[in-house]
Amino acid sequence: MGGTDIERLIALLARLPGLGPRSARRAALALLRQPQARMLPLAQAMEQAARSVRTCSSCGNLDTRDPCTICTDPGRDAGMVCVVETVGDLWALERAGVHRGVYQVLGGTLSALSGMGPDDLNVAPLLARIAQGGVHEVILALGATVDGATTAHWLQDRLAGSAVAVSRVGQGVPMGGALDVLDDGTLAAALMARRPA
Amino acid sequence: MGGTDIERLIALLARLPGLGPRSARRAALALLRQPQARMLPLAQAMEQAARSVRTCSSCGNLDTRDPCTICTDPGRDAGMVCVVETVGDLWALERAGVHRGVYQVLGGTLSALSGMGPDDLNVAPLLARIAQGGVHEVILALGATVDGATTAHWLQDRLAGSAVAVSRVGQGVPMGGALDVLDDGTLAAALMARRPA
Repeated sequence: MGGTDIERLIALLARLPGLGPRSARRAALALLRQPQARMLPLAQAMEQAARSVRTCSSCGNLDTRDPCTICTDPGRDAGMVCVVETVGDLWALERAGVHRGVYQVLGGTLSALSGMGPDDLNVAPLLARIAQGGVHEVILALGATVDGATTAHWLQDRLAGSAVAVSRVGQGVPMGGALDVLDDGTLAAALMARRPA
Repeated sequence: MGGTDIERLIALLARLPGLGPRSARRAALALLRQPQARMLPLAQAMEQAARSVRTCSSCGNLDTRDPCTICTDPGRDAGMVCVVETVGDLWALERAGVHRGVYQVLGGTLSALSGMGPDDLNVAPLLARIAQGGVHEVILALGATVDGATTAHWLQDRLAGSAVAVSRVGQGVPMGGALDVLDDGTLAAALMARRPA
C-alpha cells in the first residue's frame, strides 16, 4: 500500500464512526492528493481542538470555555435545565433552536449491560444547582429506549423531594412521518399521548 | 455547537469523501471524547504522512520512497507494466495480489467533460521506459467506462509502433455475481467475451 505512514493513516481513519476500511482508504487518498490544502489543515484543526476543547464542569458540554458558552449566556434561562444523554443530543437540540434554557449532559444512561450505574452519570452539578434553589424546571430529554426510560424514572425519583417541576419530552409520530412505516412501540406511545383535538 | 474550534473541525471532516455533515459531527464527537488517545494520534499521522508521502516519479504511486517500493522491488517483473487510472486502483490490485509486475498510474482518463487531454495523463515515464527497451508487456487495467475505453484506445494507438505486447483486462460477469442483477452492458460484454468451455 506504499509505506507504513499511509497504512497507519488509513488504520486510524478507519476507526472513526461512519468510516470502514474501504471509505478510510478513499479518505486517505483524497487527503494524500492535497497534503498542503487538505491534510495539514485538518491535522492542525485536530491538534487545536485537542488542546482547546474541554468538558464544561457545570453542564458536561464540550467547549473551548469552562463554564461553556451556553452556561454563561445571560440570555438563557439558567433555571430551566434540559437533561440529555450525550453532547451529540445537546448539539441536535441547539441546531433545532428549541430550548432557551441550559443543559445537563449525563454522559450516558443507566445500563445494566454496559455496567453504567448512578455514580457514572454526570448528575451531581444538576443536584447542586437544584439544592442552591436556582432551578425551576428540569426537562428530561432522554432517548425513548429501555435504558433512557430507566434513567428518566431514576432521575424523577431523585428529584421527587425538591420543588422543581420535572417534565419529559413528548413521544409520538415524528414530524413528516407516515403512520404505516412507524414501529408498533411508537404507534402505541402516540395513541397513549393522544390529546383532545 | 461549542466553539469555533469544534465547528472548524466538523467542517473539515465533512469534506472527506464518505462523510457528510451528520457523520462528520459523530466523528468529531468521537475524537473530542478521547483527545489524547484518538485525536492527537490521528493528527500526528496526518502530519507525518503529509511530510513523508510523495508521488513516485517513475510510476505515479504514492509512497514514502521515490522511486516507490513497488518500482524498486527486485522480485517484481519491471518489464510488465499495468496501466491504471488512479492510486486507488493500484491499491486494489495490490490487495488482490494478482499482478507481479509494476504499474503506471495515469492520474485519470481522457475526458472531454472534465477537460483532461493527453498532456494531463502521466504517461511519459511509461513511454520512456518502453523507448529504453525495458518493457515487454503493457496491461491496460482501465475502468469499463466510456472515458476508460477512450483512454485505452488512445494508449493502444500510442503503443502500436513499439514491439510491446498490449492487453486489456477481461470484461464480464464478476465473481460471485448473479446474471439477473447485472446491467445490460455487462451482459453484452460477457457474451462477447465468451470462450469455448
